[in-house]
Amino acid sequence: MNYRMVSTTVGKILIAEALLLLLPLSVAFYFHESDTLWAFLATGLLLLLVGGLLEIKKPRHRRIYAREGFMIVAISWMLISCFGALPFLLSGAIRNPIDAVFETVSGFTTTGSSILTNIEAMPKSLLFWRSFTHWIGGMGILMFVLAFLPQRENQSTYIMRAEVPGPSKGKLVSKTMVTARILYAIYFCMTVVEIILLWAGGIPLFDSVTTAFGTAGTGGFSVRNASIAAYDSVYAEIVISLFMLAFGVNFNLYYLLLVRQFKRVFKSDELRWYLGIVATSTVLITLNILPLYDNLAEALRYAGFQVASIITTTGFSTADYTGWPVLSQMLLLTLFCIGACAGSTGGGFKVERLVVICKAALSRIRKSINSREVVSIKLDGNAVDMQYAYNVLAYLAAYVILVFLGIFFICLDNVDMPEAISAVLTCFNNIGPAFGKLGPAGNFSSLSNFSKVVLSFLMLAGRLEIYPMIIVFYYRAWKRKN
Amino acid sequence: MNYRMVSTTVGKILIAEALLLLLPLSVAFYFHESDTLWAFLATGLLLLLVGGLLEIKKPRHRRIYAREGFMIVAISWMLISCFGALPFLLSGAIRNPIDAVFETVSGFTTTGSSILTNIEAMPKSLLFWRSFTHWIGGMGILMFVLAFLPQRENQSTYIMRAEVPGPSKGKLVSKTMVTARILYAIYFCMTVVEIILLWAGGIPLFDSVTTAFGTAGTGGFSVRNASIAAYDSVYAEIVISLFMLAFGVNFNLYYLLLVRQFKRVFKSDELRWYLGIVATSTVLITLNILPLYDNLAEALRYAGFQVASIITTTGFSTADYTGWPVLSQMLLLTLFCIGACAGSTGGGFKVERLVVICKAALSRIRKSINSREVVSIKLDGNAVDMQYAYNVLAYLAAYVILVFLGIFFICLDNVDMPEAISAVLTCFNNIGPAFGKLGPAGNFSSLSNFSKVVLSFLMLAGRLEIYPMIIVFYYRAWKRKN
Repeated sequence: MNYRMVSTTVGKILIAEALLLLLPLSVAFYFHESDTLWAFLATGLLLLLVGGLLEIKKPRHRRIYAREGFMIVAISWMLISCFGALPFLLSGAIRNPIDAVFETVSGFTTTGSSILTNIEAMPKSLLFWRSFTHWIGGMGILMFVLAFLPQRENQSTYIMRAEVPGPSKGKLVSKTMVTARILYAIYFCMTVVEIILLWAGGIPLFDSVTTAFGTAGTGGFSVRNASIAAYDSVYAEIVISLFMLAFGVNFNLYYLLLVRQFKRVFKSDELRWYLGIVATSTVLITLNILPLYDNLAEALRYAGFQVASIITTTGFSTADYTGWPVLSQMLLLTLFCIGACAGSTGGGFKVERLVVICKAALSRIRKSINSREVVSIKLDGNAVDMQYAYNVLAYLAAYVILVFLGIFFICLDNVDMPEAISAVLTCFNNIGPAFGKLGPAGNFSSLSNFSKVVLSFLMLAGRLEIYPMIIVFYYRAWKRKN
Repeated sequence: MNYRMVSTTVGKILIAEALLLLLPLSVAFYFHESDTLWAFLATGLLLLLVGGLLEIKKPRHRRIYAREGFMIVAISWMLISCFGALPFLLSGAIRNPIDAVFETVSGFTTTGSSILTNIEAMPKSLLFWRSFTHWIGGMGILMFVLAFLPQRENQSTYIMRAEVPGPSKGKLVSKTMVTARILYAIYFCMTVVEIILLWAGGIPLFDSVTTAFGTAGTGGFSVRNASIAAYDSVYAEIVISLFMLAFGVNFNLYYLLLVRQFKRVFKSDELRWYLGIVATSTVLITLNILPLYDNLAEALRYAGFQVASIITTTGFSTADYTGWPVLSQMLLLTLFCIGACAGSTGGGFKVERLVVICKAALSRIRKSINSREVVSIKLDGNAVDMQYAYNVLAYLAAYVILVFLGIFFICLDNVDMPEAISAVLTCFNNIGPAFGKLGPAGNFSSLSNFSKVVLSFLMLAGRLEIYPMIIVFYYRAWKRKN
């Protein structure tokens, strides 16, 4: 365990967070919100101080492995969440520290579950910070550091692997820093285009920017109590739906489009399954909720938006699906678990893994039919090796075990069974709203502090794909030699 | 595909079912139930006729493989359920054919979910047949054929593999027929001991026999409307609990005890996990339900019985757990999924598989900490090979996919979310009662015919461990050459 490398890198990340705070600070300045201005300033200075202290002692050697990568990622994400909660606390906007941390973890992990009962009463700069955490967390703060601070190649590879979601992490180009910059450039441009499109459609600029942040990170925090329904604009709903779906696609595919490798994009099994699942569930839910709405167009409007919002793990809402028939609710709960594509800003189990586990199950059946046949699992036309499929299946096991454990802890609270199950799934998959009193029309404020801590852990575990958050609490990982 | 071998073997099984009908026939004779007597007689003759016709054409060669084994098992189980439903229909005790098939599938698969609204109003011989299907299905009707009708070694191995539950199917001795006979002998003796113990405790003989059948097969049909609570006997509850737990243990361990290989029994990881899960969940539920009962002893009495009943997938009840706190309900729902040990008469995912997936998840974490370390999964002290672990994980994938698909279909019915989820889990894992109106105090009669067909399929898929029931509906498996 290279302790010094871990502390130096974590220090750099805290300094990066301080720099990122300049943006909400400017917003506070612009809107003359002096209380929050001071809160941001104090938090920024504290971050610079702590980050500087952590960074000051240079490591003797800079070599790190997967273990250090996981540690750096887990510790950084916990620390940026705790420091990121300070503006809410120092400004007095949120009084319970657990609530503030929950809200910030929910922001950085792009979950979007909120403990706020009246969002519109919050200072604008805090609402901006809340949405901006989605944007930072979507692509990842370590990716930000990798893109814009100088790093050696060896160390950045492991950090990138630990933060970027999905079972196989291919770099676009040989250098990690260049890969990170390309990804951030695509991310930035798509966000700007969405802001312009929303603004052009009559959404106020502040709302356009924050909503675009929430879409880009597939987060789901809105600056309105009624979420996207507040704008009552079909145009805005279509723009947001399309961008949610776009941010749920593997960013590598956008890079392939840029370098004109169209064939490889069309060959992507994951993309086809993703679009297929979106289309199928939209059609099924539209038909299922038809009796509740005036006409087919209206049912399609609400079904389509909710499906796009949930499979991409964004969590914006335009309708309260808790009043929908049980089949629609179950389909949405299934989308909770599936999540978006690997290498996107979306969370969840990831479509790529779903493809692999379905094919693994099917290949077992084909193998039973004819034991002499060589049955291999193919992805994008290539046979995948067994170790990869095994790892995906082991991830499924870890995922299922953690979901059950999480539900047990939440059951200690005053919730019913659908609430407990959906709260764990929504947080673990970084979606946002759950069912019952935790649904789109409600919020998470009524839960106990214990539940909020458990759900915060699950949000981080989901965003970082389980292993880093387990390893950081595993004593064996802390041994100096291993 | 060796069609003739499939039809011959299926024919033998139907003849075996006809012979087994002699027992309820005698009961009908003893109780002077002439209507059901004729129903049993007619069913038996029909079985002999159809079985004889199927068996008559001798196959040219007798070689079969895994595929034929799966086919034989799936077709036999569907046919014995359809024919087994005839006595209910012909006697007029159940009027809806779907209901009669559901009840019989529930019997043979040792599920114990019932559509009967007033059990005690049924003729005794039908109640006997209903419980006897549990006893036949527990050890398996094909195992019965293997044990008592002459077979060649080659064919019986594949049939046994397809019917005996669990990920690894070791034969006790080199000959399948001898293995099957040993297993049936253990099964028979344990059942007789339970009958005697219950009878000695003041339970009427008829109830003792039928309850012992339900316990031995880990089925759960009772001859009383209030299930085991009807006897209000702590003694009977303790006897039944202990026998439920005993029938949930891998029968190979009893054989090892008989041949005095005590060390291998104590080394069994599965047994230790099984007992550990029983103890832990009993303690947790006892503490959780304590406020609902007069004292600790009473809470322990109800918690212990329900835990034993559910983890072994029996489904007897002495308390309506739907009124328990949500944590207890969630713990029970988790036990729904775990199930008993491999190679027992119990259903579910099986403890052995749970051990493997937990160890697989943990080994991935250890591997992340140190990628150079060779991390192997150990079971009973021996490293398991990767193909075996892979197969268990692929089974988890198939299991999860089928559960979700099943829930979608049940959601089309008039149920709420906990009812839909628990109905699928209770049937797929061969337990019996679910939650809500399908709980211990209710029954499955209110469901639509479509739901009953789906649940019947799931019961068979659960009992036969998924693959046979998929393969039989998979066109590629029916090709002559493969």
